[in-house]
Order: sequence, then structure tokens, then C-alpha cells
Amino acid sequence: MLFSAHAQLMKEPTVDSEKRASFMINAPVAKEVKLINLSDEMALGAKEYNFEKNSDGIWTLTTNPCRPGMHYFEISIDGAKVTYPGSGHYFGWGRWTSMIEIPDDQLDFYLPKKVPHGEVRQHFYYSTTTQTTRKCLIYTPPGYDKNVDQKYPVLYLQHGAGESELGWTMQGKANFIMDNLLAEGKAMPFIIVMDNGYAPRPGAKNQLSPGGADNLFADLLTKELIPMIDSAYRTLSDQKNRAIAGLSMGAGQALRIGFEHPELFGSVATFSGGGKSNFEIETDYNGIFKDAIQFNNSYRLFFIGCGTLEPMYPGMKAMFESLKEHGIHAAFSAPVGSHEWQVWRMHLYDFAQLVFK
Amino acid sequence: MLFSAHAQLMKEPTVDSEKRASFMINAPVAKEVKLINLSDEMALGAKEYNFEKNSDGIWTLTTNPCRPGMHYFEISIDGAKVTYPGSGHYFGWGRWTSMIEIPDDQLDFYLPKKVPHGEVRQHFYYSTTTQTTRKCLIYTPPGYDKNVDQKYPVLYLQHGAGESELGWTMQGKANFIMDNLLAEGKAMPFIIVMDNGYAPRPGAKNQLSPGGADNLFADLLTKELIPMIDSAYRTLSDQKNRAIAGLSMGAGQALRIGFEHPELFGSVATFSGGGKSNFEIETDYNGIFKDAIQFNNSYRLFFIGCGTLEPMYPGMKAMFESLKEHGIHAAFSAPVGSHEWQVWRMHLYDFAQLVFK
Repeated sequence: MLFSAHAQLMKEPTVDSEKRASFMINAPVAKEVKLINLSDEMALGAKEYNFEKNSDGIWTLTTNPCRPGMHYFEISIDGAKVTYPGSGHYFGWGRWTSMIEIPDDQLDFYLPKKVPHGEVRQHFYYSTTTQTTRKCLIYTPPGYDKNVDQKYPVLYLQHGAGESELGWTMQGKANFIMDNLLAEGKAMPFIIVMDNGYAPRPGAKNQLSPGGADNLFADLLTKELIPMIDSAYRTLSDQKNRAIAGLSMGAGQALRIGFEHPELFGSVATFSGGGKSNFEIETDYNGIFKDAIQFNNSYRLFFIGCGTLEPMYPGMKAMFESLKEHGIHAAFSAPVGSHEWQVWRMHLYDFAQLVFK
Repeated sequence: MLFSAHAQLMKEPTVDSEKRASFMINAPVAKEVKLINLSDEMALGAKEYNFEKNSDGIWTLTTNPCRPGMHYFEISIDGAKVTYPGSGHYFGWGRWTSMIEIPDDQLDFYLPKKVPHGEVRQHFYYSTTTQTTRKCLIYTPPGYDKNVDQKYPVLYLQHGAGESELGWTMQGKANFIMDNLLAEGKAMPFIIVMDNGYAPRPGAKNQLSPGGADNLFADLLTKELIPMIDSAYRTLSDQKNRAIAGLSMGAGQALRIGFEHPELFGSVATFSGGGKSNFEIETDYNGIFKDAIQFNNSYRLFFIGCGTLEPMYPGMKAMFESLKEHGIHAAFSAPVGSHEWQVWRMHLYDFAQLVFK
């Protein structure tokens, strides 16, 4: 299907029935070609693989069986770390990176189906906070343009470190997850706003930590983005119809911003991040959980997501159990999986069925 | 600003005041690292460059002065053709490819400015033609969501060979070009539909030629896409308010489909493609230009764009002159430049000021 002057140099990775992935690259004078797994070891069956060279200078590799889901990797050619030319490219690790999607025989909730589709809109705006033109992505549910009298709740949904506003749709398939849930009547229709979690202070030169002084994302979100979205889209703009969630770095941002602004957010969710290793209900998160009645009056839902294979899993589970025991409106989603998009897809799938109900 | 475990391995290319671009890559055991210019020679000042290795195993390169605009290139590491890790990635050449934007001291019509911005919407649909879920991009002008009684003309705008529906916004900056023209009152607001010019017949295994039997794009556009767009958006759906344009491969598609369907399209544009080397007004394009009165009754505008440095330039210019002499409603845009996005940005800039007026 594709035009390519270099068709012979590349090959889309294939995945066999045992979930082994095969790769091929032309590197005639290279001494060493490796595949480097940027996910956990079992995601791609090993941390690293050596390609083997055939007599034509073509290097090939078939991996061990891989775990279903979407996994980051890169190629090393004589020590240079680059992307695999034949695969999809996604923004992660602070740059364009290779990923491979290993199909799941049991799960298809994130695949495009023959159902009504919402749109993913690129919304451009000049930010007075960062003094740059920024882009956020907006998911509008199917029928948004036709149901001109309907207003919708809004979820602010953040990506992880090194990723961008593209992550939740390109990697996460958030739009297809929502389309499918809505087609089955399993979720309320809502708008999703996905902005970039890096909002550098004008002139900032350092790498940005999620909540550091040079990252003005909290200001940007609360002072610029929310008013802009409520003005540009048909939103339900009261607190109970606004939620914030994020994964990993974005989870920390969601907890920090969500709990600092009970006047803005009625639901808060962490997907694999922002947890405490020895959760103290009286004092952690500035003591917000201390008074369960007050917390529940402010927040309709506190959602905790974590993969069962993540090191943080026991801590997140203990936090959830402590909160439930204390009477907090909390929910827990713990799919089998690691710190990976397949888990976050499931978190969104679970969260979307609970929020705004 | 970016999180990266590999920050030291990459460097965004920089461009100095002489328009020389600098690159850096860590490839400690490589024998040879090259930059391969995928554009014309002068775009990046030479067809190919060798990086030089310093004592730390870091390879660096500073090019000759480059021509303003956005240019495709790739890196060769010991013979393996890959992308440059530090640069923007764009879909071209049938794969994700490196590009570098060389600023133009005179031109800023395609840069984001502090003006009202339109949206770029990802519109997903199941195609009965290809039997797949497809994505097209839709530019809606500023104010589209607010001016709920306004209807808009529609331009169908196609990319070149090896590119995708992303090309006109990611490389072409079509949305910013329109935003800026509209802010200056230089163009009518219209919707732009950018679909993928490859629409493989279900089961087709061959590479698709633009108008070959396995590429059902003409069917998809005329039978599926136009009715869907007219149903989903507030369009002016009469012939005179619908135009088709494309670049290179997309220019050939625009001419073929546009001239075969005078009932659908009121304006047709070629940007650098689909021309004839010895244009015969009586017979070429199935004799559509033979009767100027009939042509002008069907079509309000036939727009020909070409870069002055393109080999096809003399032929395109001769065609335009022959058409003008014959009394055809034709316009010609010939910016200084080659077969490149900077030229097509200028074509769109010129065309948008003429169409639908």
C-alpha cells in the first residue's frame, strides 16, 4: 500500500500466533544491531535482543512471546539509539519513539469498531502563561455537533512523563474506548480535554519536573484552560461535572491540582502514580482524607488505578483499603499488567463507567 | 523541557543566521554516519553529508546554508537508513521521516500567530469502500462552533505520494495559513477536508498508484466522503461551493476527479502535478478545455501551481498561457522553489484568496 523508495529497507513488525514479533532492517556495514525494550522485561519477552545478519546484509529478529498491549522500544545500530523505520512512531521518552501493538485475544474495548465515532479536535490557543501557541486535544462524543442543546461534563486527562497531549489518543485510544462504551450504553457522554503537561515558564531552560517551579501547568489548567474550554464548548461547568485524571506523572498532577481545587473538580483519578508507600490517612495529601464526610461532600469519586505488576501496587491497594474503611468514596481498578498503556486503557475504561453518574 | 533518559544522545537541530543546520548523534562504535537529503540538492545545501566523530564517540555535522522551508532528510548509520532522533517526525516517503524547518526571513504566513484559530478535527468513519475504519482531518474556521447558522464552502485537499492525511497540517501548516488569511480578511472562511489518498481495494496487496485499479480513492471521495461531510458539517453543498486541490500525486487525483465530476466540483487546483509536457488544449484532459465557454460555465476557477525550480515548470507555464489565451478561467502561482512544502504552502496561500469568491 505504501509508496516508498526504501520499501526493501523496512518491514512492519509482524506478530505471530504465539505473540512473537519479527523485525527486519537493512544495515549492510553495521557490526551490531539490537532491539532495546523500553518497557518492563516481559512486555517484549526480554530486556534486549540481538538481531542476526544474513548474507545480504539484512538483519532480522524474532522475539520471545510478548505480552498483549502497546510497548515502547528502540533500535541500537552500532551504539546509536534510533527508531525502527517500519513501525508506528509515537511521542514518548521526550522524543518520537517506536512502539508495537501486541493484539490481545480477550480484549477489544480499545479497537475501532463499527459504532458512531466522536471527534478528536486539535484546539490551538495562545497561552499567556507560557507565552506560546499551544495545542490541546479535545474528544467530543458522537452527536456533539447535532445535539446543539446538550451540555456535557468534562474530564481533564493527562499523559505521562516524556509523552505529550497526543498520548491519550495515539497510544491510549481514549476516543475508541469512549466510542465503544457509549455505543454499549455503559458510560455517560462527556468531553475529554488532553493538554500537554509541560507548560514551561517563559524563558525556563531546565527540564521540567511535573510540579516544579518552572512548570506552570497547574496555573495554565486552572486559570486559562478551564475558562477557555467552558467558553469554546458546550460544557456543564459546575464542579461536580468536572473531573481530572492522569497517568504516572499526570497522576501526580491530577492529585495535586484536583485536591488543591475542590471548588473546580468533583472527581479525581490517579492511574499509576502519585501514591504513598506507607499511606497515612490523617496526614497524607495535606490531610484531605482525614474527615471522610467533608471529603465526600467535596468529591463524588476518588478513583485509584494501578497495574498488579507495578512495584507501587501494594501501596496503592493499601491506600484504597484504608480509604474504604474510612468511608471515602473511592474506587480501585487493578488490571493485570505493568506500568504500561494497556493498563491505563483499562483504567480509563473502568473510570469512564463510574464518573459523572 | 523534555523528559528523556537519552537526553545526551540527541539534540534538536539548530539553524544559525547563515541557515546552516547543526546535528549531533551518539554512535560510539559506528564507522560512518551520514545525513541524506531527501529533497533537492540545494534544499539542504548538498545531497549528502558525512558526520565527523569526536573523541567521545559523538558525531556532529554542520551543513552548508540551506534554503528556507521544510525539508525531508534521513540519517544513515553504517548503512542503515533511520530518522534523526532529535528532530520532528512527519509521515512522508511511506514512513515516519525526519524533517527540518529552515526559517524564512521574509515569510511568516504559515506560522502560528496571535489570531483566532480554527480547529483541526480527526473525523473517524467506517468506509464501506475500503472496509476499514479511516480517519480524515477537517479544518473548521475560527467561529465555526459559535456561528451555528452559517454554512461554509468545502475544499477537498490532497497530500503527495508517500504522505498521509496528516501532511497538509503537520508539514503544510494549512490551518495556520487559513487562520492568518482570515484574520487579515484576505480569504472567505471555508472548511478543508484532508483524507488519505490511498484507499486500497479490500484485499489489495500491491503498492497503490494514485489512480490505479486497486486505489479506490475516487469512489471513496465521490460516493462516501462528500455525502458524509455534507451531513456531518454545515456545508454549502452546491457544486460552486465545493473545490478539489492536491499536491504532486494529489494534484493528479484532483485533476482526474475534479474534471470527471463537473457536477460535484466548481473549482479545481493542481499544485505541482498532473501536468502535460506538451500541452494540447484540444485533446488533453479528454478535451475538457476545447470549449472555453462550456468549461467556464462548469468551473469558476482552474488554478495551476508550480515551483519555478521544478522540471515541470516550463510545461505548466505553457499550459497556463495556452489556457489564458483560450479564455479559460485559470490562475497561475509560481513561487521560487522546488518540489517542496514551502512551495505548496504558497500555493494554498494564493489559491485560498481566489477560491469561493
